[in-house]
Amino acid sequence: MALFSTMSKTELLNAQSELLDKYNRFKAGNIQLDMSRGKPAPAQLNISNDILKLSIDEYINCDGIDVRNYGILDGISECRRLFSELLDIPADNIIIGGNSSLNLIYDAFTRLYIFGSLGSKPWGKLDRVKILCPVPGYDRHFAICEELGFEMINIPMTPEGPDMDMVERLAAEDESVKAIICVPLYSNPDGICYSDKTVERLAKMPTAAEDFKIFWDNAYAVHHVFKEVKLLNIFDVCKKYGTDDRIIYFFSTSKVTFPGSGIALVASGDRYIEDIRRRFGKQTIGYNKVDQMRTCKFFGSPEGIRAHMRKLGDMLKEKFNIVLDTLNREFEDGELLKWHKPMGGYFISVFTMDGCAKETVRLAKEAGLVLTNAGASYPYGKDPNDSNIRLAPSYPDTDDLKKAMELFCICVKLASVNKLLNNIEKGDTQ
Amino acid sequence: MALFSTMSKTELLNAQSELLDKYNRFKAGNIQLDMSRGKPAPAQLNISNDILKLSIDEYINCDGIDVRNYGILDGISECRRLFSELLDIPADNIIIGGNSSLNLIYDAFTRLYIFGSLGSKPWGKLDRVKILCPVPGYDRHFAICEELGFEMINIPMTPEGPDMDMVERLAAEDESVKAIICVPLYSNPDGICYSDKTVERLAKMPTAAEDFKIFWDNAYAVHHVFKEVKLLNIFDVCKKYGTDDRIIYFFSTSKVTFPGSGIALVASGDRYIEDIRRRFGKQTIGYNKVDQMRTCKFFGSPEGIRAHMRKLGDMLKEKFNIVLDTLNREFEDGELLKWHKPMGGYFISVFTMDGCAKETVRLAKEAGLVLTNAGASYPYGKDPNDSNIRLAPSYPDTDDLKKAMELFCICVKLASVNKLLNNIEKGDTQ
Repeated sequence: MALFSTMSKTELLNAQSELLDKYNRFKAGNIQLDMSRGKPAPAQLNISNDILKLSIDEYINCDGIDVRNYGILDGISECRRLFSELLDIPADNIIIGGNSSLNLIYDAFTRLYIFGSLGSKPWGKLDRVKILCPVPGYDRHFAICEELGFEMINIPMTPEGPDMDMVERLAAEDESVKAIICVPLYSNPDGICYSDKTVERLAKMPTAAEDFKIFWDNAYAVHHVFKEVKLLNIFDVCKKYGTDDRIIYFFSTSKVTFPGSGIALVASGDRYIEDIRRRFGKQTIGYNKVDQMRTCKFFGSPEGIRAHMRKLGDMLKEKFNIVLDTLNREFEDGELLKWHKPMGGYFISVFTMDGCAKETVRLAKEAGLVLTNAGASYPYGKDPNDSNIRLAPSYPDTDDLKKAMELFCICVKLASVNKLLNNIEKGDTQ
Repeated sequence: MALFSTMSKTELLNAQSELLDKYNRFKAGNIQLDMSRGKPAPAQLNISNDILKLSIDEYINCDGIDVRNYGILDGISECRRLFSELLDIPADNIIIGGNSSLNLIYDAFTRLYIFGSLGSKPWGKLDRVKILCPVPGYDRHFAICEELGFEMINIPMTPEGPDMDMVERLAAEDESVKAIICVPLYSNPDGICYSDKTVERLAKMPTAAEDFKIFWDNAYAVHHVFKEVKLLNIFDVCKKYGTDDRIIYFFSTSKVTFPGSGIALVASGDRYIEDIRRRFGKQTIGYNKVDQMRTCKFFGSPEGIRAHMRKLGDMLKEKFNIVLDTLNREFEDGELLKWHKPMGGYFISVFTMDGCAKETVRLAKEAGLVLTNAGASYPYGKDPNDSNIRLAPSYPDTDDLKKAMELFCICVKLASVNKLLNNIEKGDTQ
């Protein structure tokens, strides 16, 4: 196919009319498809169903503690050990929380807001707090920052992670720059994996704020799909530079077993994890130890988790391939759409021509396909180029996904042609 | 036995020597007993063991929602309905939270600290925030207020609840008085039940602070032991006066099924529950719906919960009777020790002669019986009379409890005699 940008007005009008025909046929079909959120498909959930039937016959844990009763704020030791081995973080630096790593992230931000960190001034008492936000990123992270009145600064993503020149400069120069939020492996939504060099630079960079924090939301730590990418262990690197209290590390089994009934954890350096533990001691008597025991019994070992994730990875691979094959076929020249092929995680993030994302999402919605709102992966919902769209291929079944992708491609093209025609129109009247 | 206060120095010395003999015999026995925390005994936990073995075969809920996946911030509707019927609160005014009502209380305080309520100034931005604390009360409530820098004001307890003349006066006069924390039924630790009149006065009293809140920690709502005391429904009364957004109501099944793996909830008036829901939407994607379903399946109905609580009540009754019988026998004249017989809840709270609580607890500890720290049931851990001790009879088995109570009585008497001798000593040298 000829490049759209080289087409004459007549050629574009013909293309538009052809696309509109296809689009309207879809619209008449009254389909209802949803690629908006990173929800696992029922088939993925099914492989964890044994956890619903699992009987806890031994409620005394390895330390002789009755998990049915109060106590053990940090989490039972077999559970801390399981994740310690899985993630290669010392068990003493881990606290097992409730069902939601997002809630632990929220708690981490509100704790800093109210109390500061290790004696620093509470962030809520400062005139300005700035948070570095690699973009595109996770909308729920941004929503927390916005809620707390923190100012978010867009940091462009590169294939190696956030633009570290910019991160280093801002962190070093401005003491109101207090944190960076990272999804370092298979980032949401781009699927970017931070390079060793990026992790090292984050660990060693000087920061004007003495209580600078790295929110390390390792949500997809074991969510490999095409390949197992190795992420440098940030604890090891930070230890080397004496900056491990800078880390606030999060992980959960929400996308391992069941969203909402998994186990989440927070980890940090020796001093700061102690601070978190002390604050948690006011907040709760303890998290759900029965659920912790269930998780341990279901997986048995870190290898149990890895084997489980290989099954989930295979399921996701099929869906990722449908999306990627369609994109490769329809947009191989990269003129109307660009994307990065992720090796794991949950999302594929695409970039339309500038100014076409919102219109693409609108067109899709009108024809029955719900996509994540354009702009959602940027602070304040504002994509400066109106270009990024996050595709979440996990939930629909493969037939629906093929249909959804067919429609999506038509919408991208239609939005692009409309835009190009609009540009010509403007040129004509100037 | 003669009253200690009428004894001569010689008589007191004889009594002291006799008590010391008994005390030292205990000490030599190397016992290890704990009456410090309101932990259920293993026998109590056993009657909920089926929840550990319960298989969830139907994970699609009554609304057709897959509880294994994301969504449903408020909690699944069968669970909200279960507690709505149990507690007589409209289901729409209830949000099911995580495993810990204490955590919901903490969240409620931090939310007010950061955001205020319905447009009011955030409490963290005010110079002073004062919280009315009926005393004795629950140490963990006080710990949260202290952590947040809120000033706590002791409100004496009466047999009908907090001294309402004082509450009304402070709430009406001082706009920095922002809240009162109540455990309205079988209060921790006194076992006081708020009278209808008290509830009504709390609902209708004018408050200088427009965002005044009543923390209504109905932790023992269904924890009847000797008698089922009816608590006036604060929602009904507040509705009458248009003050229902004043209520923040908490309940959990921590002391129904298992501490730490139960279900907690928060409820409020129409407008404020909406505010909480919106804030929760930033904090989490949702609480554990599988645990909610487990709870519903285990109990089946509100009557299922009530029947379960009758069994627990019978178990506690035996322990309460051991404590109360011993106290009645040893301190019937009320000279050295006073207490209020609770009809339910988890605790028996006793008052020594002024200045004897700390010494009693110290003596008990040295002989192997751990009691709740003296003063713990007062803000800042400071009992102005050094008189109150909270007894938690649930955890020890009946033999241990008898032994513990025997030792406790000796310690009370010894501390009292020491005090009286000390007073004489002081008198002698003046």
